[in-house]
Amino acid sequence: METQQARLMDGTDLARRITETGAAAAEQLRERTGVSPCLATVLVGEDPASVTYVRMKQARCAKAGIRSRHVALPASVSTGGLVEAVTALSEDPGVHGILLQHPVGAHIDERAAFEAIAPEKDVDGVTMRSFAAMGFGLPGFVSCTPGGIMRLLDEYGVDLAGKHAVVVGRSPILGKPVGMLLLGRDATVTYCHSRTVDLPSVVREADVLVAAVGRPRFIGGADIKRGAVVIDAGYNPGNVGDVDFGSARRRASLITPVPGGVGPMTVAVLLAQTVEAAERQLARS
Amino acid sequence: METQQARLMDGTDLARRITETGAAAAEQLRERTGVSPCLATVLVGEDPASVTYVRMKQARCAKAGIRSRHVALPASVSTGGLVEAVTALSEDPGVHGILLQHPVGAHIDERAAFEAIAPEKDVDGVTMRSFAAMGFGLPGFVSCTPGGIMRLLDEYGVDLAGKHAVVVGRSPILGKPVGMLLLGRDATVTYCHSRTVDLPSVVREADVLVAAVGRPRFIGGADIKRGAVVIDAGYNPGNVGDVDFGSARRRASLITPVPGGVGPMTVAVLLAQTVEAAERQLARS
Repeated sequence: METQQARLMDGTDLARRITETGAAAAEQLRERTGVSPCLATVLVGEDPASVTYVRMKQARCAKAGIRSRHVALPASVSTGGLVEAVTALSEDPGVHGILLQHPVGAHIDERAAFEAIAPEKDVDGVTMRSFAAMGFGLPGFVSCTPGGIMRLLDEYGVDLAGKHAVVVGRSPILGKPVGMLLLGRDATVTYCHSRTVDLPSVVREADVLVAAVGRPRFIGGADIKRGAVVIDAGYNPGNVGDVDFGSARRRASLITPVPGGVGPMTVAVLLAQTVEAAERQLARS
Repeated sequence: METQQARLMDGTDLARRITETGAAAAEQLRERTGVSPCLATVLVGEDPASVTYVRMKQARCAKAGIRSRHVALPASVSTGGLVEAVTALSEDPGVHGILLQHPVGAHIDERAAFEAIAPEKDVDGVTMRSFAAMGFGLPGFVSCTPGGIMRLLDEYGVDLAGKHAVVVGRSPILGKPVGMLLLGRDATVTYCHSRTVDLPSVVREADVLVAAVGRPRFIGGADIKRGAVVIDAGYNPGNVGDVDFGSARRRASLITPVPGGVGPMTVAVLLAQTVEAAERQLARS
């Protein structure tokens, strides 16, 4: 008996193409206006993972012709101090997009800091307004990982209308917004989470499964519906996703590998949205 | 064989008690500050249903000691004109809550008009910020019908954690926000809508069903899970809900009648939130 294997959804390749398109648009913008898109990155403290992540984003930006401006704040910064720094970037016409690296420290009101990002510069899609725009199908920037997931689904021709999409996880920048985007594309959407009773039975109903919990190999292949589309947005130590790839691959029709699936898409969407933000802001000025 | 009948969730009685509490708080506020809570109602055109609805809300406000200020605009008003009128109310310290009666006419950008409502006066819970607050579990006013549904569930001791809640309908002021509120209370939440394939099979999984589609007797009792909690937020001509009450009542454990279930709760939450808005604004001034 031959075992069918799911087709891989290649996020590395799609992210490369999105980045190339963004780089070309950035170059055109620079030629036309003399200004390159500029992404401001804000980092609170020196958490090694955050430092690495911000540096990686800056390096990708640089390769795509996007300048970055870095604002490093001490771990001891107050909510007021952080809000002030973000507000200054929101008001600075030389900055087109703002990325506030999460987490910012438990003593800080993270929501207040996010909300200091001007809507037209919220290229990471973290503000309340951006969430509502995703919920209501209104113009605005999307949260980057959800946006990357939607681009992957489109790239591989997944028709979402009427499909049952199951989202496992309900974080404000991943689970919740991706469910809203799927609902906006006419999927029937179920949100599951740590309190869900009998998760496997819900997962088994999924035509499209989005795993976003951050628990290694949390979802086994035996619970994947045959022919399902499996999006693994988990990224756990040891390059392991939330889905058990080996067993899931034998049930799914399409699946994102980890790494090389959703991961690269996040930064690609960030870059694309930064270029778009710059285009709009420079067109207005 | 005895046929079990669901217990009725009495929205009329609960709404009366909420209104009484609100009226007492309004009276206390007036005694303390000399100011009564004031709800501004904005009506565009003369749609008879809207006129009736606004008058009913004003009458309920008056009975509860809440003043209302009515702004009537011609059906021909532009988006700019409507936004200007709403903005004036947002900036008027004598107005504590704003209700912009929907619909406002197809030529108007309704979203722009809603967004002109200051967050602290959005007692109807229609702004993007209020939606995101419901999505993220942050402080803010809830959309009134979803808020009324949650109060009914609490009143009747429905424990939502881990329950499968199915929301049929995805409007921005009913289906979408009530799903977010249920998710915030740890229910597993499924959003269904007109594009859902095999709706009955999804409905049959619901421990808690919220029907919010506006189609008379759209959901039949045969599809209600035995023991389910059925919330009928539909209100169709002839005092008929979205659920076939007669057959659903023999399957559910708790059910809202139509009329007398969800309907009265909407205005009660509007009143309660208007008093709360006044209390906060007067405490600050």
